[in-house]
Amino acid sequence: MYPMHTFTIAAADDSLALALQSKINNKTKPLGALGRLEALALKIGLIQNTLSPRLTQPVMMVFAGDHGIVESGVSPYPQAVTQQMVLNFLAGGAGINVFAKQNNMAVRVIDAGVNHVFAPHPDLVDAKIGMGTRNFLVAPAMTLAQCEQALAQGAELARAEIAAGSNVLGFGEMGIGNTSAAAALMCVLCHLPPQDCVGRGTGLDDDGLSRKVTIIEQALRQHRLDGKDPLQVLATVGGFEIAMMAGAMLGAAERRAILLIDGFIATAALLVASRMAPAVLDYCIFAHCSGEAGHALLLQELGAKPLLDLGLRLGEGTGAALAYALVQAAVNFLNDMASFESANVSRQDSV
Amino acid sequence: MYPMHTFTIAAADDSLALALQSKINNKTKPLGALGRLEALALKIGLIQNTLSPRLTQPVMMVFAGDHGIVESGVSPYPQAVTQQMVLNFLAGGAGINVFAKQNNMAVRVIDAGVNHVFAPHPDLVDAKIGMGTRNFLVAPAMTLAQCEQALAQGAELARAEIAAGSNVLGFGEMGIGNTSAAAALMCVLCHLPPQDCVGRGTGLDDDGLSRKVTIIEQALRQHRLDGKDPLQVLATVGGFEIAMMAGAMLGAAERRAILLIDGFIATAALLVASRMAPAVLDYCIFAHCSGEAGHALLLQELGAKPLLDLGLRLGEGTGAALAYALVQAAVNFLNDMASFESANVSRQDSV
Repeated sequence: MYPMHTFTIAAADDSLALALQSKINNKTKPLGALGRLEALALKIGLIQNTLSPRLTQPVMMVFAGDHGIVESGVSPYPQAVTQQMVLNFLAGGAGINVFAKQNNMAVRVIDAGVNHVFAPHPDLVDAKIGMGTRNFLVAPAMTLAQCEQALAQGAELARAEIAAGSNVLGFGEMGIGNTSAAAALMCVLCHLPPQDCVGRGTGLDDDGLSRKVTIIEQALRQHRLDGKDPLQVLATVGGFEIAMMAGAMLGAAERRAILLIDGFIATAALLVASRMAPAVLDYCIFAHCSGEAGHALLLQELGAKPLLDLGLRLGEGTGAALAYALVQAAVNFLNDMASFESANVSRQDSV
Repeated sequence: MYPMHTFTIAAADDSLALALQSKINNKTKPLGALGRLEALALKIGLIQNTLSPRLTQPVMMVFAGDHGIVESGVSPYPQAVTQQMVLNFLAGGAGINVFAKQNNMAVRVIDAGVNHVFAPHPDLVDAKIGMGTRNFLVAPAMTLAQCEQALAQGAELARAEIAAGSNVLGFGEMGIGNTSAAAALMCVLCHLPPQDCVGRGTGLDDDGLSRKVTIIEQALRQHRLDGKDPLQVLATVGGFEIAMMAGAMLGAAERRAILLIDGFIATAALLVASRMAPAVLDYCIFAHCSGEAGHALLLQELGAKPLLDLGLRLGEGTGAALAYALVQAAVNFLNDMASFESANVSRQDSV
């Protein structure tokens, strides 16, 4: 009935867990001395089902979309900033461009539904579902058909990256108003009150924050969502870029890629995806804890412990691009560090 | 009288602070949205006294030394592991080699006092002060003359790196037993009891930990240090690699280099250095919070907030090499991100 029923995500195979742990323990270091990088190396080995994982052609997928809720005054920035930032991405001048370049990640900019018609550009993927969502304070953000289309298109885009040689995908976004959509998704799917989920986004002051909370409360009262049907929730209070990102995550996990999850919006997209196919979480690495209020709690709801905690709240995939260096470090130590035997270093038990 | 009196470290010049903050605020992102990377970019700009800082020829200096206290049973690993790991560094098989290579950092291995005579090797700096320190449970670890020599030699090595073109130096170490020396330094200089400073090192069990605490208590009772003379404290309970690292930090700060501080041992060396010349702290970036008990408190004593918190406790400079990518990211966004003007992006106040 729904397209997510076509996603078949296998739980990560843990048959190599003992062999991977043994390889990690044989590296020239005290047991456990590389801390969370060791767990990361183990997870990546399991995802790729190998003792010698490799990261190939990392891609940061940046999904952009506009949000009707902006007309209700949830952001201090005008909606036009979404399209302006898309052009900034294409010109290479945004934070994500800088951090992706540093980490040798390609950046794909996907127009999932920006309220602007872009001239064709080699780095821009036209996957536009509409010219921004409707204001979910007055109507569902999108139709179920649009939502299904966004999911399917996201999955297709992820599959295409993987078919072209990538095995690690980062997920970022741009969309003025999308912290409101993400907060609403979190409220419904985690059964939490807006004050626990709503943050300042790009920089609301106290009055703006309290207005944003009230707007989300009103919207949720109106739609009376019980959270049992993730597709319906996504269509009602989500966004085009969030839906497409969720589809891309599901499509990528289906192909056993590594998913690098950025901040609050990307995690909200994953929350939706995980309600459609919980095994998607087996493929996720959580990049960072955002400075956006709500993210820490959302991560906790997903049982996730992010790698970085730098107070970032820019989105775009910036946190994921920064964390990629740690993912690479985990793979590198697993592959390239000497073992006690190969380096003739005495073990602890040889004392 | 003491060589540290020859260190003249200027406080970082903050005359560019407003201009740097303005440049950061004009980048295409909400105000403050890059979190701690913004403070980092500001700090680096102040250290280099420029709006366009650059990182050149980053070097990880790994100081190695042996410790007489090992004969009292403070480590589960034999002393020979120090020399074995030095050979592992030279062969490129250790964690620090892997992470430094990933971040394009050179690795210098400095024999400050390993209990082994190494064959000459192009990557090994022979700065040996002695064949390991004396057991500070029974006698001062080194003479004041040895301590002065180690400080002076460390400073000279740092100056040489800077003269050769480096402006960012990482500080790491290897030395079985050196968490005991570092803990003792912390106890004396911060007036803290051993149970707050002593950790499991390479992996002591509960009995081993409690024995280690007792040994440090005994040593401190015997030496009756009041902590007022950092050189005397360093000579009495420090180590050759710790003293040489402290000297290198002082020499590097004197030349206005960026200092990237690794874990518990490196931070203890910095603690000593900062008691000799407090302005050294203006040049420091704290890489990570180690899993070694005591490090979090030591960082707090120095008013430091590290970038990473990954439960690492390997030393060698591994945490500093991993954090280097974040330092580079801070410099990159400051130099390479577009401004609101250059990218034609609307500002918040244009709503």
